[in-house]
Amino acid sequence: MLLVADNLHVVDPAISKAVENFDPGPIQSLVARCNEAGAQAIDINSGPLPRQPEAHFTFLVESIQAVTDRPLLLDTTNPKALRAGLEACRRRPVINGFSLEPAKIERILPLAGLYEADIIGYLLDARSRVPVTVEDMMDLAVSLFETAIKSGLDPQHLIIDPVIAPLSWENGAIHNRAVLTVLRSLPDLLGMPIRTIAGLSNLASGPIPRRQKIFLEQAFLPMLAAAGLDLVLLNMFNTPSVQTAKACDALLGDKVFAWAAIPQIDE
Amino acid sequence: MLLVADNLHVVDPAISKAVENFDPGPIQSLVARCNEAGAQAIDINSGPLPRQPEAHFTFLVESIQAVTDRPLLLDTTNPKALRAGLEACRRRPVINGFSLEPAKIERILPLAGLYEADIIGYLLDARSRVPVTVEDMMDLAVSLFETAIKSGLDPQHLIIDPVIAPLSWENGAIHNRAVLTVLRSLPDLLGMPIRTIAGLSNLASGPIPRRQKIFLEQAFLPMLAAAGLDLVLLNMFNTPSVQTAKACDALLGDKVFAWAAIPQIDE
Repeated sequence: MLLVADNLHVVDPAISKAVENFDPGPIQSLVARCNEAGAQAIDINSGPLPRQPEAHFTFLVESIQAVTDRPLLLDTTNPKALRAGLEACRRRPVINGFSLEPAKIERILPLAGLYEADIIGYLLDARSRVPVTVEDMMDLAVSLFETAIKSGLDPQHLIIDPVIAPLSWENGAIHNRAVLTVLRSLPDLLGMPIRTIAGLSNLASGPIPRRQKIFLEQAFLPMLAAAGLDLVLLNMFNTPSVQTAKACDALLGDKVFAWAAIPQIDE
Repeated sequence: MLLVADNLHVVDPAISKAVENFDPGPIQSLVARCNEAGAQAIDINSGPLPRQPEAHFTFLVESIQAVTDRPLLLDTTNPKALRAGLEACRRRPVINGFSLEPAKIERILPLAGLYEADIIGYLLDARSRVPVTVEDMMDLAVSLFETAIKSGLDPQHLIIDPVIAPLSWENGAIHNRAVLTVLRSLPDLLGMPIRTIAGLSNLASGPIPRRQKIFLEQAFLPMLAAAGLDLVLLNMFNTPSVQTAKACDALLGDKVFAWAAIPQIDE
């Protein structure tokens, strides 16, 4: 399972200020900490970037590329910022992401082919609503897959995100069990293996005490891993969750004695 | 998921001495600690009990029943000890267990009907060898189920243990992934839901540092839970593993906001 840091948010005041002032220091030091914690890719969550979207997103990509050669996930709903970011990427980037919302299909999806990027497709309906039942998720997965193919995307560049729901939602736990079923069913449903990603921090978002958040993440992550999840977007500073991800690899990988490679980090 | 304490072993010198001297104190204090940690049933692992099997096992059962009314798992290969233990149980006990080994089918399995006990059936072949492939496990599950039915056991009193392998075995990780597949497939395979149990402490037995053991247990337990495991036998003093079990229930149960009930215990 590939670990993607979700730590870089422009809503974070220190990062927001650094972007505003074109000061790479705080951004680069955050990325360095994510790398040390074991991040294998970095999600750049820029928010809408209402002012100077191109300049700010280009600055973010270039600042990060100066300190890491790990893949970048470009996580913005602003197509101008996204284009600028894609232009600036030196390695194959990941567009994060599109859904069945018509504006996303028109303005975001075509950029994957244009810039030779991978792209994340969310299992959300045309109005960006979260489905609850397994059947609805399956239908959305088929539609998303067909839409991507029709746009000319090679399916090996599609990554499906089944969208983890916060447990604070009334149907959150039911939804998340459906996510596990869908992850297991996708290869059969689509007739080929398709990579998958999920945002673990959604699970226990909201006013849940930190210890509980961590235990919930530690419990759900192995369920996702055993269901076949390929990439996980998570807070790299939640050390027990990161350690759990490594233990999952030891249990699910093909290396003999892989457990011996799990580092012994105290929390 | 029901938590069964595997902490009571007669090989433990303090317990061995207590049994030898018919001194209930050390046994009762261990059981009290298991209960405090959240144990919902207690496994009495007596070993072969070569001397005074009946008297010693009766003493164990009576000592424990004096301090808890939780169900007891009678974990001995000695049929004399087992019979005595079954006689002494005030509540429906669980025989732990039988396999396709002819001696077990002849001498252990009939005791379940005789004493109105539940019984654990291990997915081991007639020579008590551990299968590796999913197909072998499935075949053993069908044989075990049919053998139990033929002996007159009501299938609701059968509990199947697919046998977790130590990761230190060369094929341990492969075997344990097959265990997950088998757990998910059992209801379809047998045409009805059958309860399942697994011994988590087997996973990281041997010379694995404690922190790694815990991370491996924490990673595998949610995989087992999501695959449908009903009971887990574990070291109740591995607090993070116990907390993970509770987080699994919050994720897989039907209670809204169940996460709010996870206690915040520090390790």
